[in-house]
Amino acid sequence: MALVVQKYGGSSVADASRIKRVAQRIVATKKAGNDVVVIVSAMGDTTDELLDLAQQVSPLPPGRELDMLLTSGERISMALLAMAIANLGHEARSFTGSQAGVITDSSHGRARIIDVTPGRIREALDGGQIAIVAGFQGVSQDTKDITTLGRGGSDTTAVALAAALSADVCEIYTDVDGIFTADPRIVPTARQIPKISYEEMMEMAACGAKILHLRCVEYARRFGLPIHVRSSFSTKEGTWVVFAPDSEGIEMEQPIISGVAHDRSEAKITVVGVPDKVGEAATIFKTLADAEVNIDMIVQNVSAATTGRTDISFTLPTTDGSTALTSLKRIQERIGFESLLFDDQIGKVSLIGAGMRSHPGVTATFFAALADAGVNIEMISTSEIRISVIVGQDEVDTAVNAAHRAFDLDADQVEAVIYGGTGR
Amino acid sequence: MALVVQKYGGSSVADASRIKRVAQRIVATKKAGNDVVVIVSAMGDTTDELLDLAQQVSPLPPGRELDMLLTSGERISMALLAMAIANLGHEARSFTGSQAGVITDSSHGRARIIDVTPGRIREALDGGQIAIVAGFQGVSQDTKDITTLGRGGSDTTAVALAAALSADVCEIYTDVDGIFTADPRIVPTARQIPKISYEEMMEMAACGAKILHLRCVEYARRFGLPIHVRSSFSTKEGTWVVFAPDSEGIEMEQPIISGVAHDRSEAKITVVGVPDKVGEAATIFKTLADAEVNIDMIVQNVSAATTGRTDISFTLPTTDGSTALTSLKRIQERIGFESLLFDDQIGKVSLIGAGMRSHPGVTATFFAALADAGVNIEMISTSEIRISVIVGQDEVDTAVNAAHRAFDLDADQVEAVIYGGTGR
Repeated sequence: MALVVQKYGGSSVADASRIKRVAQRIVATKKAGNDVVVIVSAMGDTTDELLDLAQQVSPLPPGRELDMLLTSGERISMALLAMAIANLGHEARSFTGSQAGVITDSSHGRARIIDVTPGRIREALDGGQIAIVAGFQGVSQDTKDITTLGRGGSDTTAVALAAALSADVCEIYTDVDGIFTADPRIVPTARQIPKISYEEMMEMAACGAKILHLRCVEYARRFGLPIHVRSSFSTKEGTWVVFAPDSEGIEMEQPIISGVAHDRSEAKITVVGVPDKVGEAATIFKTLADAEVNIDMIVQNVSAATTGRTDISFTLPTTDGSTALTSLKRIQERIGFESLLFDDQIGKVSLIGAGMRSHPGVTATFFAALADAGVNIEMISTSEIRISVIVGQDEVDTAVNAAHRAFDLDADQVEAVIYGGTGR
Repeated sequence: MALVVQKYGGSSVADASRIKRVAQRIVATKKAGNDVVVIVSAMGDTTDELLDLAQQVSPLPPGRELDMLLTSGERISMALLAMAIANLGHEARSFTGSQAGVITDSSHGRARIIDVTPGRIREALDGGQIAIVAGFQGVSQDTKDITTLGRGGSDTTAVALAAALSADVCEIYTDVDGIFTADPRIVPTARQIPKISYEEMMEMAACGAKILHLRCVEYARRFGLPIHVRSSFSTKEGTWVVFAPDSEGIEMEQPIISGVAHDRSEAKITVVGVPDKVGEAATIFKTLADAEVNIDMIVQNVSAATTGRTDISFTLPTTDGSTALTSLKRIQERIGFESLLFDDQIGKVSLIGAGMRSHPGVTATFFAALADAGVNIEMISTSEIRISVIVGQDEVDTAVNAAHRAFDLDADQVEAVIYGGTGR
């Protein structure tokens, strides 16, 4: 008997009929002889509706109360799902994050899991019951207050519980067939990837592939927990996220490049004319860190010898733009830089593949493909298994297609075309 | 410094603007130098909407899951109320029933409070915070599952917490000015009652006055906790529910009759031709008790000597009608009764007053008033401080007015006329 942890997102449980369909899938898994733990998000737009209510009552609601409010969303979906399963003749019990033993720190709205003590879940499983657990929420170790985990929270709950229960697999259900070599809406010939390593998946997630959140992949990797990303609309095999062959010996067809990810949610800020003195860059990024701005890529040009000044460019989520500009203007006099440029018409295109470690020509091929397609590169950043470039936002599609073609990622079959892609 | 417990019902927090208004009233109470604990119900129609969702998913949802679902309602309203208070510059913290220490038995949907351990509420008060508590909910002592208290649950939470915290008063906010001598929609001259004893209030509640639930008055009486029923739309004094003068010596103007209550929610079942043998009535009411039917009044006619058979009539909530009829039909052969009659076109009119103990003429005056008004009495039931009669449903208004007039309950001022009444 295997222990299967399944996670269903908000769109999978958006209304009563979808909840009933999910219940059937859960019962089928149980009937196949597995113990089943299900993590569920809030129904459809519930979270947005609750946020809207909060805004009507207070322009700046306290984090503790916002978490108390938002966690009612999963409470509703998990209770309804348990009822639907009961209606199919199987016993199900729903548990809040607190009841499931998801212990977090006290950072409301973006709490981190510090322990998982799933005693009640284990009891339910031992009693032959299906356990339904609220995703996205936990309870603070210090204050015993209800917390939420922030973006990607339900996936993280699923992986954390699966790890604590030593589950055989954590299945993440979504509305596409798995992870694709590129967003099929941009690259019609994109292929579904049958297996991918944690490392590559982390790079994909960090570079704009939105199906799995970076944080949940990190967690799964730490515990060696296999993730199976699959569609809640079919029974097809999806994408397995596992260790790369060299670390665990799993048979894995290892192409040079796994996929091409893209991200249109970032903007670029250039700090123009920074005096070329020791510590100026440190002051700039310390200021941004204090303002809780998340920086992605950073480029510093070589300073012009004649002026003794340099330009520093970085990318960040567009939503953090005004916060960043405001905090930088406050230190303009102290640093003595000349001006700030803000550009939100950019896009990031990333090539990801563990195989590029041993293939030194990848960068050259990638840049040549972009050049042939007439795409201008504004910034470059690389890791062991990733190359990212910043291009104009209206050139993202062209760049993704050129890279996909250059590395022979196109599908043999055309069926993959009908599905949505990794860039949602 | 006094400790004030306030309870606001669903209509008082039905939308964002009403929540903000309630927040202002709470802050005013705090600013007046009081410690404040607030019990809140779910917003407006939330509970009905959740029940509707449950019905879409399962025709017979498990009680545990239904409670998990329904308790999300207060979670939403209490978090929003805490935010609205924070927005007025005061610190508020919301607590679920479980966090507030409302410990119950495991009867989902109608749990009874067995202990209240309000350590976290006390801590919040000591920290100068306003505590907002979810009404209607608790946590089971045995299973640690979330429970709901059933009808009148939020009032009961308020009184139970107020008692556990030794509060000075429990204020129940509603949309009328207090308890009236009769429903002003039926008796335009009905007066608001400034003070009423627990005993009379219990009889009023049991006889159809819906502002306070019987259960919460019982609880308040046990702990000697004063209840103040008042309007959330004005700052007028409402109705105080306290000990009668003879038990506690409180100065109380004691009229013979406090008020006239009525109830149109009951039906009457007559079991026709029951063999007049020992134990037949016991079997009938044991059967009804097993089916969890709540019986109110019971009348057994003297058996006709010639037939050796008798008729037994009783009243019950109309909603329990079909359950009662089904379970009685199942024992028809065993008991040997002839037939069952069901009448849902009845109404109950009750005269309540501690003063009637020492005024033997009350019954005669009441019956004479009904007779003069042409109202036919179908059943009669009495207690020390109450006389109830069953009449035709279309004669309820006439009967209430006749009784109100006969005992000189009419108001001196006409202002009370504009408010809704005790019979909502």
